[in-house]
Amino acid sequence: MPTDPTLPESPHAKRRQPDDPAPVYDVHVFCCTNQRPTTHRRGCCGSKNAEVLCNYMCRRAMVTAAQQNIRINLSGCLNLCEYGPAMVIYPEGVWYHYETEADIEEIMERHVKRGERVERLIIRDFSRMHR
Amino acid sequence: MPTDPTLPESPHAKRRQPDDPAPVYDVHVFCCTNQRPTTHRRGCCGSKNAEVLCNYMCRRAMVTAAQQNIRINLSGCLNLCEYGPAMVIYPEGVWYHYETEADIEEIMERHVKRGERVERLIIRDFSRMHR
Repeated sequence: MPTDPTLPESPHAKRRQPDDPAPVYDVHVFCCTNQRPTTHRRGCCGSKNAEVLCNYMCRRAMVTAAQQNIRINLSGCLNLCEYGPAMVIYPEGVWYHYETEADIEEIMERHVKRGERVERLIIRDFSRMHR
Repeated sequence: MPTDPTLPESPHAKRRQPDDPAPVYDVHVFCCTNQRPTTHRRGCCGSKNAEVLCNYMCRRAMVTAAQQNIRINLSGCLNLCEYGPAMVIYPEGVWYHYETEADIEEIMERHVKRGERVERLIIRDFSRMHR
């Protein structure tokens, strides 16, 4: 475990190279909005209001876009169906489950804008993930 | 410019925190497949064969998925329409333009699998980007 959070010993950090262009977005959020047939055993984010909430997050982000270089995108299946609706925030690669506009607000205010974590929503146990 | 590529002085690296869960995917690719009306002045990745090539990349990734923890996703508009079809590879946040299956093969083999860069396809000049 690193002691200096600005230099995490993450396999992620090692993938950047010195000559890589500067990041286009400082914070890039992808919300799974994949829609499956209602009878599918794994369910899907799309059936749990994901697109509506992702669009809410987009509009919410426009308010802060003048101050921060952020982008909110919908995406295809992120394979965390069992935890859905699920989103991932890059470059840090942190995953959240969310259900309401209040959840989105908290993720925006604390994680996206201030770089903190929303413990009550963060996904830490991936044991139910379909590998 | 850092001299040790394993510790890049990237604003990206600083966003990871010591207590963050291990990354779900070591390499996570998002291909914009956004479709706009054909008359739209900015064009779109969706009109340039992006979905077919993204699906090709997905199938291509399945071959290596046993060795590497990678995920290929389609996504909504990444706002690099002028450079499309465009993809971004996280966590490193490197962007590529691609047009053919051969381009996809090269990005898969060199960037995704070996962590190198495909100079002829990498997007470095973002001056045409719509801000």
